[in-house]
Amino acid sequence: MSPELTKEFLQDIRARIAADDALWLKEQVLHLHHADIAEILDNLTNDEAKYVYFLTENEDLQADILMELDEEVRDRFIASLSSKEIADQLENLDSDDAADILGELSKDQIQQVIAQMEDDNAAEDIVDLLNYDDNTAGGLMQKEFFQAHLEWSVRRTIMELRKQAEDVEKVYNIFVVNEVEQLVGVLSLKRLIFADTRTTIEELYQSKNIIKVTTSDPAEEVARIMEKYDLVSIPVVDYQNKLVGRITLDDVVDYIKEEADKDFKMATGINENSDPSTSIFKSSLSRLPWLIIAMIGGTIGAKVISSFEGGLSQLPALAFFIPLITAMGGNVGVQSSAIVVQAIAKGDIAFKSILPRIGKEALVGLMNGVVLSALIFGIAVVFSNVQLATVVSLSLLTVIVFASTFGTIFPLILHRYRIDPALAIGPFVTTLNDVIGLFIYFSIGMLLFQL
Amino acid sequence: MSPELTKEFLQDIRARIAADDALWLKEQVLHLHHADIAEILDNLTNDEAKYVYFLTENEDLQADILMELDEEVRDRFIASLSSKEIADQLENLDSDDAADILGELSKDQIQQVIAQMEDDNAAEDIVDLLNYDDNTAGGLMQKEFFQAHLEWSVRRTIMELRKQAEDVEKVYNIFVVNEVEQLVGVLSLKRLIFADTRTTIEELYQSKNIIKVTTSDPAEEVARIMEKYDLVSIPVVDYQNKLVGRITLDDVVDYIKEEADKDFKMATGINENSDPSTSIFKSSLSRLPWLIIAMIGGTIGAKVISSFEGGLSQLPALAFFIPLITAMGGNVGVQSSAIVVQAIAKGDIAFKSILPRIGKEALVGLMNGVVLSALIFGIAVVFSNVQLATVVSLSLLTVIVFASTFGTIFPLILHRYRIDPALAIGPFVTTLNDVIGLFIYFSIGMLLFQL
Repeated sequence: MSPELTKEFLQDIRARIAADDALWLKEQVLHLHHADIAEILDNLTNDEAKYVYFLTENEDLQADILMELDEEVRDRFIASLSSKEIADQLENLDSDDAADILGELSKDQIQQVIAQMEDDNAAEDIVDLLNYDDNTAGGLMQKEFFQAHLEWSVRRTIMELRKQAEDVEKVYNIFVVNEVEQLVGVLSLKRLIFADTRTTIEELYQSKNIIKVTTSDPAEEVARIMEKYDLVSIPVVDYQNKLVGRITLDDVVDYIKEEADKDFKMATGINENSDPSTSIFKSSLSRLPWLIIAMIGGTIGAKVISSFEGGLSQLPALAFFIPLITAMGGNVGVQSSAIVVQAIAKGDIAFKSILPRIGKEALVGLMNGVVLSALIFGIAVVFSNVQLATVVSLSLLTVIVFASTFGTIFPLILHRYRIDPALAIGPFVTTLNDVIGLFIYFSIGMLLFQL
Repeated sequence: MSPELTKEFLQDIRARIAADDALWLKEQVLHLHHADIAEILDNLTNDEAKYVYFLTENEDLQADILMELDEEVRDRFIASLSSKEIADQLENLDSDDAADILGELSKDQIQQVIAQMEDDNAAEDIVDLLNYDDNTAGGLMQKEFFQAHLEWSVRRTIMELRKQAEDVEKVYNIFVVNEVEQLVGVLSLKRLIFADTRTTIEELYQSKNIIKVTTSDPAEEVARIMEKYDLVSIPVVDYQNKLVGRITLDDVVDYIKEEADKDFKMATGINENSDPSTSIFKSSLSRLPWLIIAMIGGTIGAKVISSFEGGLSQLPALAFFIPLITAMGGNVGVQSSAIVVQAIAKGDIAFKSILPRIGKEALVGLMNGVVLSALIFGIAVVFSNVQLATVVSLSLLTVIVFASTFGTIFPLILHRYRIDPALAIGPFVTTLNDVIGLFIYFSIGMLLFQL
């Protein structure tokens, strides 16, 4: 289908750019799918990319390529253009994409670019979109959509749509509005095609169970609604129920992925993209906060152990099982937190009651605890003696039950206070479990050995 | 928009079911959006759900509800139906959904249900789909799609589409085939509407850069292609390039989410759904494997420490920093692995070379290591003495550099041997880092204290 982007092909391209071989590039590169062209540009220097980009005079192709570029590559590319050039590029884009790009610039630059735009309507749409918060329906929506009035006939609708057609790249549904531009229903393109041309929209459209969002609805909610109702596009209305935009699934897919990604990043303590172009300094900086939390935890752990120094010097073997206790507490806690985070993400938590869940997790912990402490008892007996084995297995049971209960409650508390519950999976819970686990372990040890 | 599913509303519904109040249920429940009805049924007993489900005689609504049910709820529901009832339900579904449901049954049951189906064409489609592996394009595709022949006029195409319209629920694109049913291009519905009715498809359709998949392509690949090229539907061809099906984005969105979810689950060591209906026994069982790995690691760690027992009894304070060393090694390793797993998921790795990445991670590790070991030196000096502080900070530096390098290499190795690299983020890397970290720590301690 599309040529594999090999190192050799890329080297060829760079050589042809250096040789100013526009003909070859037009034939071999610009005939590819825009997503493939973008992938190639992602792997060139900015000057090379610019050269290839401006080889095509097809504005639609330019727009498609631009929106497929890696975000960092695109930002770099835009930054290297003049205000006039940026303005020209923006006029080819959908309003939501144009607003996203503009949103990355400084206030001064935004004003300059807007002033250079020739299409006043497009400029106005973009300026309007800039008002919305990125993480709301308003921030995701585009101003290009098909709308039809209730009283229009199918013939008139098709004629009107033809006029709007140039602006609206992808058509899934037609939104139906009344005389004051309020959303009253939707109509599928399929239904429109198969209808008699004299029928009116009022006879055809669907007004029941219209799924829509308001500009201020959070993007997360939009993603959830589009997923729940399996929608490819959703109308956006203002507080007066006036139709102001639409959001398409492809914009939300990115959001859904970002959300899933965010949990993964939070759980693994990374806050960066895997992009190889990120500098070492930036990578290092983004990971340090988590590591410092873990280090503070480790220091508190050291404090806990040192308070049992007397016992430890009498029975150094107590130290053998420190890593086991902390590792188990950490893993059990992470598992419980992860389950809760998933439940919250799926929206299960709001409806179901919380106490049974905590009870259930404690029971799961108890069950795993019994199995694992029986196992460790066997191992530790061989390893040392019955008394130490008893201490280890008893502490392990306590630590596991505690960690699973705590790992369940902690993300629920974060969620209640509107903090991202995935935060619980990172070093926080692990570290807290470490400290408390150590305390439990040494306390039981002191008690049983009467140190 | 849709009524919030409150506890009170659910209680009302159950009471009306108990009272056999079909009228109320029809008015209050069956008029909702099918996704909302499904959500209600998810929260009822199977008998209650069946009662509500069969209250509607609208077969399309039944099909929509059925496909929106939670998977476990749906399996339970289907299991409680007779072969004849299942056959009736399947005839209302899209072929891919019907095949998915049938795939959950035993071979005997499948034969019985197929035998009871009245629509032979539908039955044939479903039987054909059952041949494909779930995780391939063939397993995802449906047999319902619009196709047009090159030589058809727009008028004829619209007529033919009208015939096919009943079967095809959602229309995005029309696939264009030649006289031997081979895929030669696509045509958007929008283009069709706006064309003169006498134009032929050959004059209208797009034949350049057709994005398609073959039945045997892995589902992961399909998801990646649809995302890369921003497609809402993609044609599926067989080895002779004959058009055999289509895959729509909504089926793939689930796949994209499952994939992202899989990494999260792997990283946090869970292998279950957050569904509260999962039994305690099942939850416990699914988490044990990770915990046992962690426990084996802990036992090896104990073995490592015990081999330094002599030194430890002379200097019990060495034990203080055991949790710090293991926690830091674990966190650093997880961060590095997570970055690599993300890069692999995004497809960055195949193209970019591997050695620079390892070098970069080692440098990031070195940088973080220097910062953190300077910090811990300060803390440990206050805490104990210069000598111990030197041991701790030197070990920490070594452990961090090791863990970040190892955390990068390990998922790359897994990936090369076609094992899911996310496996590296779970207890495996943490545990290995623990063991090696302990060894480094005690070795340096012994050396510096000359124990």
